[in-house]
Amino acid sequence: QTLWEGAYFRIQFADQKQEFNKRPTKIGRRSLSRSISQSSTDSYGSAASYTDSSDDETSPRDKQQKNSKGNGDFCIKNIKQADFGRREIEIAEQEMPALMALRKRAQGEKPLAGAKVVGCTHITAQTASTCESAVLMETLTALGAQCRWAACNIYSTQNEVAAALAEGGFSVFAWKGESEDDFWWCIDRCVNLEGWQPNMILDDGGDLTHWIYKKYPNMFKKIKGIVEESVTGVHRLYQLSKAGKLCVPAMNVNDSVTKQKFDNLYCCRESILDGLKRTTDVMFGGKQVMVCGYGEVGKGCCAALKAMGSIVYVTEIDPICALQACMDGFRLVKLNEVIRQVDIVITCTGNKNVVVREYLDRMKNGCIVCNMGHSNTEIDVASLRTPELTWERVRSQVDHVIWPDGKRIVLLAEGRLLNLSCSTVPTFVLSITATTQALALIELYNAPEGRYKQDVYLLPKKMDEYVASLHLPTFDAHLTELSDEQAKYLGLNKNGPFKPNYYR
Amino acid sequence: QTLWEGAYFRIQFADQKQEFNKRPTKIGRRSLSRSISQSSTDSYGSAASYTDSSDDETSPRDKQQKNSKGNGDFCIKNIKQADFGRREIEIAEQEMPALMALRKRAQGEKPLAGAKVVGCTHITAQTASTCESAVLMETLTALGAQCRWAACNIYSTQNEVAAALAEGGFSVFAWKGESEDDFWWCIDRCVNLEGWQPNMILDDGGDLTHWIYKKYPNMFKKIKGIVEESVTGVHRLYQLSKAGKLCVPAMNVNDSVTKQKFDNLYCCRESILDGLKRTTDVMFGGKQVMVCGYGEVGKGCCAALKAMGSIVYVTEIDPICALQACMDGFRLVKLNEVIRQVDIVITCTGNKNVVVREYLDRMKNGCIVCNMGHSNTEIDVASLRTPELTWERVRSQVDHVIWPDGKRIVLLAEGRLLNLSCSTVPTFVLSITATTQALALIELYNAPEGRYKQDVYLLPKKMDEYVASLHLPTFDAHLTELSDEQAKYLGLNKNGPFKPNYYR
Amino acid sequence: QTLWEGAYFRIQFADQKQEFNKRPTKIGRRSLSRSISQSSTDSYGSAASYTDSSDDETSPRDKQQKNSKGNGDFCIKNIKQADFGRREIEIAEQEMPALMALRKRAQGEKPLAGAKVVGCTHITAQTASTCESAVLMETLTALGAQCRWAACNIYSTQNEVAAALAEGGFSVFAWKGESEDDFWWCIDRCVNLEGWQPNMILDDGGDLTHWIYKKYPNMFKKIKGIVEESVTGVHRLYQLSKAGKLCVPAMNVNDSVTKQKFDNLYCCRESILDGLKRTTDVMFGGKQVMVCGYGEVGKGCCAALKAMGSIVYVTEIDPICALQACMDGFRLVKLNEVIRQVDIVITCTGNKNVVVREYLDRMKNGCIVCNMGHSNTEIDVASLRTPELTWERVRSQVDHVIWPDGKRIVLLAEGRLLNLSCSTVPTFVLSITATTQALALIELYNAPEGRYKQDVYLLPKKMDEYVASLHLPTFDAHLTELSDEQAKYLGLNKNGPFKPNYYR
Amino acid sequence: QTLWEGAYFRIQFADQKQEFNKRPTKIGRRSLSRSISQSSTDSYGSAASYTDSSDDETSPRDKQQKNSKGNGDFCIKNIKQADFGRREIEIAEQEMPALMALRKRAQGEKPLAGAKVVGCTHITAQTASTCESAVLMETLTALGAQCRWAACNIYSTQNEVAAALAEGGFSVFAWKGESEDDFWWCIDRCVNLEGWQPNMILDDGGDLTHWIYKKYPNMFKKIKGIVEESVTGVHRLYQLSKAGKLCVPAMNVNDSVTKQKFDNLYCCRESILDGLKRTTDVMFGGKQVMVCGYGEVGKGCCAALKAMGSIVYVTEIDPICALQACMDGFRLVKLNEVIRQVDIVITCTGNKNVVVREYLDRMKNGCIVCNMGHSNTEIDVASLRTPELTWERVRSQVDHVIWPDGKRIVLLAEGRLLNLSCSTVPTFVLSITATTQALALIELYNAPEGRYKQDVYLLPKKMDEYVASLHLPTFDAHLTELSDEQAKYLGLNKNGPFKPNYYR
Repeated sequence: QTLWEGAYFRIQFADQKQEFNKRPTKIGRRSLSRSISQSSTDSYGSAASYTDSSDDETSPRDKQQKNSKGNGDFCIKNIKQADFGRREIEIAEQEMPALMALRKRAQGEKPLAGAKVVGCTHITAQTASTCESAVLMETLTALGAQCRWAACNIYSTQNEVAAALAEGGFSVFAWKGESEDDFWWCIDRCVNLEGWQPNMILDDGGDLTHWIYKKYPNMFKKIKGIVEESVTGVHRLYQLSKAGKLCVPAMNVNDSVTKQKFDNLYCCRESILDGLKRTTDVMFGGKQVMVCGYGEVGKGCCAALKAMGSIVYVTEIDPICALQACMDGFRLVKLNEVIRQVDIVITCTGNKNVVVREYLDRMKNGCIVCNMGHSNTEIDVASLRTPELTWERVRSQVDHVIWPDGKRIVLLAEGRLLNLSCSTVPTFVLSITATTQALALIELYNAPEGRYKQDVYLLPKKMDEYVASLHLPTFDAHLTELSDEQAKYLGLNKNGPFKPNYYR
Repeated sequence: QTLWEGAYFRIQFADQKQEFNKRPTKIGRRSLSRSISQSSTDSYGSAASYTDSSDDETSPRDKQQKNSKGNGDFCIKNIKQADFGRREIEIAEQEMPALMALRKRAQGEKPLAGAKVVGCTHITAQTASTCESAVLMETLTALGAQCRWAACNIYSTQNEVAAALAEGGFSVFAWKGESEDDFWWCIDRCVNLEGWQPNMILDDGGDLTHWIYKKYPNMFKKIKGIVEESVTGVHRLYQLSKAGKLCVPAMNVNDSVTKQKFDNLYCCRESILDGLKRTTDVMFGGKQVMVCGYGEVGKGCCAALKAMGSIVYVTEIDPICALQACMDGFRLVKLNEVIRQVDIVITCTGNKNVVVREYLDRMKNGCIVCNMGHSNTEIDVASLRTPELTWERVRSQVDHVIWPDGKRIVLLAEGRLLNLSCSTVPTFVLSITATTQALALIELYNAPEGRYKQDVYLLPKKMDEYVASLHLPTFDAHLTELSDEQAKYLGLNKNGPFKPNYYR
Repeated sequence: QTLWEGAYFRIQFADQKQEFNKRPTKIGRRSLSRSISQSSTDSYGSAASYTDSSDDETSPRDKQQKNSKGNGDFCIKNIKQADFGRREIEIAEQEMPALMALRKRAQGEKPLAGAKVVGCTHITAQTASTCESAVLMETLTALGAQCRWAACNIYSTQNEVAAALAEGGFSVFAWKGESEDDFWWCIDRCVNLEGWQPNMILDDGGDLTHWIYKKYPNMFKKIKGIVEESVTGVHRLYQLSKAGKLCVPAMNVNDSVTKQKFDNLYCCRESILDGLKRTTDVMFGGKQVMVCGYGEVGKGCCAALKAMGSIVYVTEIDPICALQACMDGFRLVKLNEVIRQVDIVITCTGNKNVVVREYLDRMKNGCIVCNMGHSNTEIDVASLRTPELTWERVRSQVDHVIWPDGKRIVLLAEGRLLNLSCSTVPTFVLSITATTQALALIELYNAPEGRYKQDVYLLPKKMDEYVASLHLPTFDAHLTELSDEQAKYLGLNKNGPFKPNYYR
Repeated sequence: QTLWEGAYFRIQFADQKQEFNKRPTKIGRRSLSRSISQSSTDSYGSAASYTDSSDDETSPRDKQQKNSKGNGDFCIKNIKQADFGRREIEIAEQEMPALMALRKRAQGEKPLAGAKVVGCTHITAQTASTCESAVLMETLTALGAQCRWAACNIYSTQNEVAAALAEGGFSVFAWKGESEDDFWWCIDRCVNLEGWQPNMILDDGGDLTHWIYKKYPNMFKKIKGIVEESVTGVHRLYQLSKAGKLCVPAMNVNDSVTKQKFDNLYCCRESILDGLKRTTDVMFGGKQVMVCGYGEVGKGCCAALKAMGSIVYVTEIDPICALQACMDGFRLVKLNEVIRQVDIVITCTGNKNVVVREYLDRMKNGCIVCNMGHSNTEIDVASLRTPELTWERVRSQVDHVIWPDGKRIVLLAEGRLLNLSCSTVPTFVLSITATTQALALIELYNAPEGRYKQDVYLLPKKMDEYVASLHLPTFDAHLTELSDEQAKYLGLNKNGPFKPNYYR
């Protein structure tokens, strides 16, 4: 099973959930195995929807709804929920000042005039007060674009927000609890409409892109580019590019420096504490913690736990990150050196089978095990589903796995990502991502012929810097400007870019 | 309104809740105003009971119940819940190693043999897995004592735990949702029993002590001492002592160094982050925070927020604490210097009206305001209940107070203690308190005639050190022992005490 | 050898130095062994004097000097150096704003009018720009006192500063490199003068007090009190008090909270890094460090090293400090558990023989060993002076001790205090001490009959707070004032004291 | 004046020094202005040489010396100093384990067999116990290379070390205090020898490369590559490359991730504290500090000062670094917002005229000003050399600049790099650089035809990782290895490289 095949695993997992939900899956698993991919659920998603347990069992596909202006080109749960959704969007707008700043600029210029964007992202409310995708969508429209939209995750749609968008005239196709057949149907409705030829793709997970490749390859003739946010989607694009099959330029938003630092280092620094507290109420002071992996996520976790008085050990495979861990004050060990003594084990490697049964067997009673890294592969949870071990669900997202001798391991989120399952992502981080997506669309749409070939690109440094600058007012932060003389001395343009592209 | 009168306010507040619960209050408010006092709810309580929504409306006082051994000397909600409660107690035992260590020692000696303890504390489960009072009670019994017990808070009893204790033979009088009449009735049942003459009091809030003073003053002739945990209860004892009315020795557990540091510095260091995250999902990085007060609580809050990347300002009235704040890297300001620019305001002063309407008027949109200090006095919440301001409850414990111009202030827990209302207290902290209480009882009960006069005492340093030492194994911490030569050099006993009583 | 006998050791050491200096000691060692005691050299001293390599070999005692006003009641090296000394004093005044503030207040009131102070402290320049004792002396005069002064250390006098004081009319008896006979002669000249009856003593080390006890016990009839700064001097006073021999009130300045925190926690937090860097240029990142003792000094060292990326282990004998170390994120171990693996060993215990030969034998090659705690007792340096070990002086204050197999231990300052020998003490810390001394003199001198008995007292909290408040302007720190209502609520005076005496 | 022209300035400065030394400069300044460039003195150098104040005034060029084997192909101060130098080299070897590990491996293979290396680096002892260049040279020889060597700085050679190398058979041409004519003469002697055709260049500053370009361009036909360490040298190479004039591959060692992090982030985190303490003894706690620039150097300075209790403000021009500063907890301001209130100003920008006279005029009395960034351009020191300001040298590297109103600014190192002038660089950092140079030589020398074109390259990631791995044993750090299954899953080779080239 390679990284790529992780998508297959996710489907299986999704299937299990569906069985649990007693909804029939109309498409066979096999045909899907490479289709509904791991979207940026990786980044934040499943923790989202708390609302909405309506009793209405009719499938949205079987309902005819129209908004107050008589428009019926959408498919959502219930148009009547629009008011509530609108209020949530308005609150979210307050917390996404960068997008609002873009809209303001758009009063004069319409950099996306003529753009026809098909999008496939989370249509969601991260918390009661955020609905960044909606704010993004409405921003793109303000910039001149026409949009059609589907959800990139069958669970994450907040129906009220979808209703508000539909009421506002958007062609949205998404509801919470779609079947996998629904999922593809929605995507298809976005793309396939008489008289509609999209020229931009905004994707999160690569499923929309995949669908167009499979069903409407000719559409790419008119498409100016793809903007992709998720790790998995980006991975697919690079594979397409390597295989010479990428037929339009693509922008890798996932690896922009601003997004990386915020999604990983800064965000995890806070969410590791939050996730552990909400699930276990553990006191951090004096705890011995094993953090596997010292990339950005691991760095964030270690910094936070050290600051709270934990004693942190680190494992690494990469000597450079290992040396950084040493210089930052962490003992670099192999897992087996300290596994018997630690109170908490956190995986942040992006790898698979980092914590295997052998280690779980040797942990001490009460040890907490969780995953901050990637998907659900890092802890070998399957190895714990054996007859001699008893599972006890003690709280939402918290299982005690009990050994025959009474030893209990506290497993969080069944080994899935703790920061998605058990903590929340600040709107501020979502705002950075959404702004980056908008700018990537603008760049690709307006780039002069030839600037971008059929390849995968990082956002130009200058636009990355622009995203950052739009978020500085939140901190009442004041940037210094170069004088002409200084700019000349440094050989820089006064407006940036200020650093080489590889700067992190 | 003085500190003392805070109790009155609490009653009013309790009354309001009761009205909401539509239960008639049989005693007039006036006569109670100085009775049901502010117990160590101050320390942790109200966040406690999540369980129990039984439909049985019969008052426990009207029911005749017996445990499986035919004993009926208790009054609780439902003896049938005993099994569930027992399991919770067993889990809690795992997390209170110090009490279990005491029990083990008690197999040889019974330091409380002959002790008859009346207790009035929380009979509660802090979280799903703790029930420290039960573990304490059973420990006292193992040490040789006989116990009768009531709850010190009308809301905090976990019925299942009370049931388990009754099943185990304890005379427990407590249930969740007592009326105030019930409250005093329960206390009275603990104290007043034919053929039962208590000789030790374990109190939390001073209500039990108050009742005996008022109703059975003669009982004090046989009582060897009082152990009191709460700020308020201790305050009352000092007042009795000053007035020459304290007629037995009393042990002030609240001010023992171990409890102080853990309840305040270390616990708040974690709970400020937890409380803010659970209520607001705020990102700490880059936020400007005003912390009012730099005592132990303020120190804990400041350290945590600084570590998470916030920019922290401090106010102080005491020049010594002020100088400490400076040396620890915080700008010491007056509230009005930065009130317009901060994102979060946290009170930790123990004072009243620290954040008044004038300041609230000048805060910026979205500013979060909360109290980590004392009771509900620090923020002048009453001043916000005026017609021109709109209150909007956006989440449990979270209100938006909206100014006419649309500005929103995010008020947490209506100005009550954030760490009680919106976060949890680790079992480890509870374990320290419970162990201290047990040792205080042992000390008072076994002290030779004359060691303690009719006064209020701090736990002897040596016992404080003993409590600490019982908790070191949790951290796999290894203490160094003095050699004979070293002990002589320092002029110390090898077994302690190692520091003067005033050491903090 | 007890703590008390440490003084004896110091003398021996002093003797050795003197032999090195080829100056004859006129008094036998025996008679001195309890006399020239360990003064606050412990706090800062020996690192001081860089100046003065005059060729004039005549003893000051044999010279007749007069200042420009014809006054000859002093004995110093060379009155001609007065100008240079005056300039140094002026620079120091800039950095001691609290004393200057006291002087300003003294323009109206003279709280020491009538006071006749004999003092025995360092007459020194800590660095090229400080001479705090001189500033203190002139401040006392401005407050109304008459002063006569000797040096508390035979090496620490800066001759230029003494000259400036003499020129200014002070009766100063001190020079750099006094013999021990000189030392007592100078003290005697301060005390014993026709028509001079001192009524206040300001001592640092207890030698002046000792001399008066021994030679002029009747003087105590007119003496209102003693102000003592050093650990040793305070220790002696407590012993006198215990023995019922203390015949005037004494103020223990050493244990005032402000001085304690600054001399220990905050000062050591900086000086441990400085001392290690200046001597060894060691990189802190990633180093494993053993800190013995987690009192204020240990806390400061640990915090600094952790912040610089070291991995810190702690040993403790006191369970309370041990628990604090755990909660602060340090592994609590016994020395022998990690002695083979650490790169640096730092003693902060106040104890003796903490690091003995057995441990030194097991340290790894290149391990750095130093003492931040007390005197020179903590590391058993004597055990390293054996034939099989080679000592190699590689730098001032740095010795390589080489084992037969080539292993090198890097011993700093021959086991004496690192922060005195190898780093400097900021003027700010000295300013706090000097201000505290001045206020203690004022308090004792003006206290109404009966406030102080023949006992040792801590500075009243309120004056401690006053010292702190005088230092806040340095940080541009703004104190908040209680409103009348708040003061009443807290039961406090608006001007303090704000905390109980035992507050730390 | 551009970055490039900085070299010119350095020469002028060097000239001044020479005038002071009263040695005639035989070559005119003009012809030199682009020649003796800013070498990695920028990284560490000028603080180096404490030794050697020999009276022998004869120029080494006029002496005939032979080593004990009769070899005279070198030019150094005094061959008799070889023993002392050898001992220093041996001590240094202990602290450079990575080079020693390379030598060990070289017992089997000789990856540099046949290599003829001309080198131009510091021949120096950083501290009394290091002489990394010597260890590097001898390592290269152990790996099979033949070497001829000159010094890249006219002041930094430690004569004893040069003597030891000559005694060991190396052709070394360097002494402390060369004239500029000597400097080029030494370089020429390295390159220009009958029968010697170098095939590799190891340069630090670009002067050797420049000389060969100018005098012996034909030599490049046989040269396989250049390894360059300094910022300036790398800058020159990129300019040559851009201009199409680079005629061999060049390896940019300066920008390797390991070197960058260590030279900047980790090293500055420590040296900022060290540099400030050694020069000013300032207490960090409570100080307000302005750090200009939040690149790696700024990040290191800020982290250290924050940890020591300073309040730190940051200026930035790059929005991404600015956002990082915010998230890390620093207020981002413009210099003029806080210039009046700060106690310390530190420049880390790499820019020029960051602190200009206008700001210096507004600083408060006693403000300390220093440069951690680049060369001597950041503080406009020239603007302080005006008649109304008085300069007072109070200590080595410390000037008080005094305004007419008595205000004093404390200027460190006359605005040159603080970390070079006033602190030391740990051997560990030097070891990383030297190892990287050795590996770069090996890579270039052994690379198959065509791997490297006539361009400037970064060290391949894998070798960077190898350098890191050689330094892990110092920390007793244990790297984890990928299993086959994990390597396959991640699509990585088990031996690395583990990260993309741009990873930082």
